[in-house]
Amino acid sequence: MGATWEALAAKKRQGLLNSIPKEWRIPDHLLPPVSQNDVTGFPESSGWFTPAELDITNSSALELLPRLASGSLKSETVTRAFCKRAAAAHQLVNCLSETCFDRAIETARALDERLARGLGPVGPFHGLPISLKDNFNLRGLDSTVGFTSLVGDPAQDDAELASLLLRAGAVVYVKTNVPTAMMIAESVNNTFGRTVNPRNRLLTSGGSSGGESALIAFKGSPLGVGTDIGGSLRIPAACTGIFALRPSFGRFPTLGCRSGLPGQEAVQSVNGPLARSLPDLEYYCKAIAVLWHDGIVLPTPPVTRALRHTADKLRATGHDVLDWPPEDHALGTQLLMRMFVADGGKAVFRELAKTGEPLRPEMADYGQARELGGFEYWQLHLERTAFQKRYLDRWKSAGIDAILAPVTPFSSVENGKFRHVGYTGVYNVLDYAAMAFPTGIAVDRAVDVLPGDAPRPLSDLDQVVRSEYNAEAVHGMPINLQLVAQRLEEEKCVEMCKVIVKALD
Amino acid sequence: MGATWEALAAKKRQGLLNSIPKEWRIPDHLLPPVSQNDVTGFPESSGWFTPAELDITNSSALELLPRLASGSLKSETVTRAFCKRAAAAHQLVNCLSETCFDRAIETARALDERLARGLGPVGPFHGLPISLKDNFNLRGLDSTVGFTSLVGDPAQDDAELASLLLRAGAVVYVKTNVPTAMMIAESVNNTFGRTVNPRNRLLTSGGSSGGESALIAFKGSPLGVGTDIGGSLRIPAACTGIFALRPSFGRFPTLGCRSGLPGQEAVQSVNGPLARSLPDLEYYCKAIAVLWHDGIVLPTPPVTRALRHTADKLRATGHDVLDWPPEDHALGTQLLMRMFVADGGKAVFRELAKTGEPLRPEMADYGQARELGGFEYWQLHLERTAFQKRYLDRWKSAGIDAILAPVTPFSSVENGKFRHVGYTGVYNVLDYAAMAFPTGIAVDRAVDVLPGDAPRPLSDLDQVVRSEYNAEAVHGMPINLQLVAQRLEEEKCVEMCKVIVKALD
Repeated sequence: MGATWEALAAKKRQGLLNSIPKEWRIPDHLLPPVSQNDVTGFPESSGWFTPAELDITNSSALELLPRLASGSLKSETVTRAFCKRAAAAHQLVNCLSETCFDRAIETARALDERLARGLGPVGPFHGLPISLKDNFNLRGLDSTVGFTSLVGDPAQDDAELASLLLRAGAVVYVKTNVPTAMMIAESVNNTFGRTVNPRNRLLTSGGSSGGESALIAFKGSPLGVGTDIGGSLRIPAACTGIFALRPSFGRFPTLGCRSGLPGQEAVQSVNGPLARSLPDLEYYCKAIAVLWHDGIVLPTPPVTRALRHTADKLRATGHDVLDWPPEDHALGTQLLMRMFVADGGKAVFRELAKTGEPLRPEMADYGQARELGGFEYWQLHLERTAFQKRYLDRWKSAGIDAILAPVTPFSSVENGKFRHVGYTGVYNVLDYAAMAFPTGIAVDRAVDVLPGDAPRPLSDLDQVVRSEYNAEAVHGMPINLQLVAQRLEEEKCVEMCKVIVKALD
Repeated sequence: MGATWEALAAKKRQGLLNSIPKEWRIPDHLLPPVSQNDVTGFPESSGWFTPAELDITNSSALELLPRLASGSLKSETVTRAFCKRAAAAHQLVNCLSETCFDRAIETARALDERLARGLGPVGPFHGLPISLKDNFNLRGLDSTVGFTSLVGDPAQDDAELASLLLRAGAVVYVKTNVPTAMMIAESVNNTFGRTVNPRNRLLTSGGSSGGESALIAFKGSPLGVGTDIGGSLRIPAACTGIFALRPSFGRFPTLGCRSGLPGQEAVQSVNGPLARSLPDLEYYCKAIAVLWHDGIVLPTPPVTRALRHTADKLRATGHDVLDWPPEDHALGTQLLMRMFVADGGKAVFRELAKTGEPLRPEMADYGQARELGGFEYWQLHLERTAFQKRYLDRWKSAGIDAILAPVTPFSSVENGKFRHVGYTGVYNVLDYAAMAFPTGIAVDRAVDVLPGDAPRPLSDLDQVVRSEYNAEAVHGMPINLQLVAQRLEEEKCVEMCKVIVKALD
């Protein structure tokens, strides 16, 4: 041990800053004032980026890939541009946890040389920089998942998914910040501090893949990979207005990812992508059900408006749209939490104890948890299976293709006020494929006000969320929704989402 | 409670016998003597079956299906023939746990009428009787999984897989015996007693799907469905010389199946088919590795001979055949056992306590088990994942398509002497697709003797198994092997198995 957790954290943060070469440090006189909330315009307005750098980083992955594969754009050029923009993002919203810029440029050069030798592109991601959430192991870098106890414990090998991406031609260059143990819905921890939302730094970029969502929203990455055990892909996507897919377990390898709760597998963590755009394709879907609220916390006004707007557009383009009652959602949410603390919080406290780091107040549940015995644990599995069965029966008898639902009650929220992951967590317990997507509409403080004749609160938590709702604070923020398909229906989920995005266009 | 467990069991057994109508009770004067070991010839030799009944029940499922679909054979005729032969099987080897003959005939008639009305076959199994292991719920029937405490607790609904089969045109008519909690490798319990092997009643038909394997080997069923959490499909197939496939989890629905250890999911139980024949198709596979022993228990001489014989045939038909070292197999076997008793045996003892039924001596491990806490349970998951990773790495670096392995050390074994499920259980922990298949060769007491220069025992257990080996007792028994493919590679596993069966032909 030796050093205090504060000293470990301070040194780690300084090391991260030091890993950014001088050429990518924002000159003091260009730094936007701390009071500037929206920093997404910085690359354009500062004059610090070249037109070529802006052209590259403003492009989507699908725009860049053909140019990279043909050699008309060098991977090294693209990689340097994204390294610079990611570095800027970090300096403005604190979104990174690790960098490996040298490795990235080395990888990019090798890919460029291969193409120059006429060997053709390596794979579908030839030359494209891809960002990874902190918990994906990369050789030689830490994966602290926010714990100071894990500072200075670099990974021996790349995570399986990172290896797959590298073999497919991708370039890895940064890892992104997460909350402690990845078990908070905002990205804050005692090691790196808090990641904030580049669209409004008073707001959260969500969690646990909130470093990713902030980086991608800032266009410091064209494509990123995060993980989701209770909403950790969809919530950050929703807070920043980008796309994210939560696949079913088994779709992508999870090996070599550091878990926040190692060995907790009653609900499985899954890996999935986050990005700003979706290619536009056709897909037919008959009936969509709308989950207007989950019976626990009403969505805030902009989210409800986005649901109504999207349902109207779908009806107008010939889809059946039904209401989806929130039956059993309270139980689903409760099951998720019971699984997360089934070890009595020991996994978390063991890490904290190593350095004396305090429990984050957002994780108070872990401090009060009672460890289950193996037998009780099996009973919990049985409750989960019964819950899954009832939900599936409802789905089948309704004859629906998908559920359109809020991702969270919020279109992002002021830092420190993110409450309730029930809208996403229920689908982790069910292991359904689910996608968070931006609706293309934004919060409007003039419209998105609490109705004067609001119904009685659904719960105490609903009352708190309602009293904290601040239309002013979230004005202009993009509003995301979630599209839920059946287990292992990832392709269908993506295609249906394209139809919806098109209907909303 | 009221009744003692002995009384509950006796009443249940009598009820089962009473459920067989008089026309299907073997006349006393035709019953083979208790001393007759092989009863598979009974249907032919007794004169009690009509030529038509013999023709039907001697056919494979694939021979019957086209005749049923065309209407040239009535489902009622086929169903009655299999009901009679299944009833005979039960009277000779005690392989059933429940019957629903009336329901079966009703289903068959409805299918026949549908065809007569020109509506065509219902699905791929139109009119075919299919037997189910005891733990598949069927409306109105018990699923005791051997516990007297579960006698008289009939299922409200059909299991999901049973519903699927019925919708595909199948006829359900019997359920088959299992060991207590399905956690013994022979099919013996305090309720129904012991199922024995129709090829030799001194030998076990294996477990836990040993009622199925006995019934199918006797041709009392053309096709059956069992479950496998540690070898429960492959072991009984191996003991009776039939085929069985253990699919990966998620391939077939498990809902509505009674678990022996409810909620135990660290290793998932899976459903899979058992049958006497495999259609003959071509499939290409490059390299097969042979697991000659698992480092714990050497296969008995006939099994080793079958491995050698099969490897030679594969080499002769152009396949690469490598040795597969049993690295980590001891750990894999141990992990399986630790998962099975992670609840400290509570699930089992809770059932036993309800009627005062004693723990079967084969399940002594459950009496000594210590319940894990939730945290320890998560650590066990981590050990399992690390084990899975090492095994997968070995597989990949060897570049193999499949592993050819023993299913058990035995080609069946004398009742009460089945020891060691490590050969199958390791692949449950790994969740690999695996198939048990008969090699077409049989035990020969003249050849399959323990070598004079046998190497030192691998373990104490190996010593016991060796000392108990009795070539005389198993003479003439079919020898099965196991073909193992990767997770979710069920189709590949089946196709490769066809190639091997063809090479052995």
